Amino acid sequence: MPTRTAEAKWEGKIMDGRGTMKLGSGAFEGNYSFKTRFEEGVTGTNPDELLGAAHAGCFSMALSGLLEKAGYPPRSIRTRANVRIEKSGPGFAITGIELDTEADVPGIGDDAFLEQAEAAKANCPVSKALSGTDITLKARLKQM
Amino acid sequence: MPTRTAEAKWEGKIMDGRGTMKLGSGAFEGNYSFKTRFEEGVTGTNPDELLGAAHAGCFSMALSGLLEKAGYPPRSIRTRANVRIEKSGPGFAITGIELDTEADVPGIGDDAFLEQAEAAKANCPVSKALSGTDITLKARLKQM
Repeated sequence: MPTRTAEAKWEGKIMDGRGTMKLGSGAFEGNYSFKTRFEEGVTGTNPDELLGAAHAGCFSMALSGLLEKAGYPPRSIRTRANVRIEKSGPGFAITGIELDTEADVPGIGDDAFLEQAEAAKANCPVSKALSGTDITLKARLKQM
Repeated sequence: MPTRTAEAKWEGKIMDGRGTMKLGSGAFEGNYSFKTRFEEGVTGTNPDELLGAAHAGCFSMALSGLLEKAGYPPRSIRTRANVRIEKSGPGFAITGIELDTEADVPGIGDDAFLEQAEAAKANCPVSKALSGTDITLKARLKQM
């Protein structure tokens, strides 16, 4: 199995310094700072939305595999991850990630769908690694 | 504090389907697939390198803050995250993340630097959330 890599560089102090984060594939490099991470309304990326993208991507792929195995290959799955970061003691903590998913899955009923969505939430590799935060799930079938 | 968002979309089955991951800030949108995630030598992004970038970015920023608080504001910190994903039971697991960091910190000694690097590894928000995987650290001061 491959090992995936990424890099970050930070220059200067935490409040007025600045950083870059870069994917090993070369697909993306972006700037971040204390402001783009912890303030509202500042344009720029931050580690927490990258974590959210990793989680939404991993969950959606895993749910596709589980639905297919259950006999209901999906047409499409759309997932939003909402990552909450808050003051915690002397620092900060990611206190929760909400996965909000909507799927187009021919023939399946609500209960069978929710069972597979809960299994994907519990078992996708990124969810398993993120056991130090609270992961919640809202899941629904797309209405035709 | 802000809540950070990201989205993923997956279309089709797991082996021959395809997805996109998108950051809420709009800074990045990228395609991924089973092949870009689990095979070697295939160009494209995957959830695991996004997770690595989030971790390297969070760690580097936290280490800057801790060094400054200890009286040694850093000039620069460079961190690489190596994310290992492996077969595990019926699925896959992120079995470890190695953080490899090198810092330019005027005046500090090796022991004091390593102490702060270990504290950043233990306490940065992304590390705390990732308690379901094994995080290891290699840290050294840049040689002048």
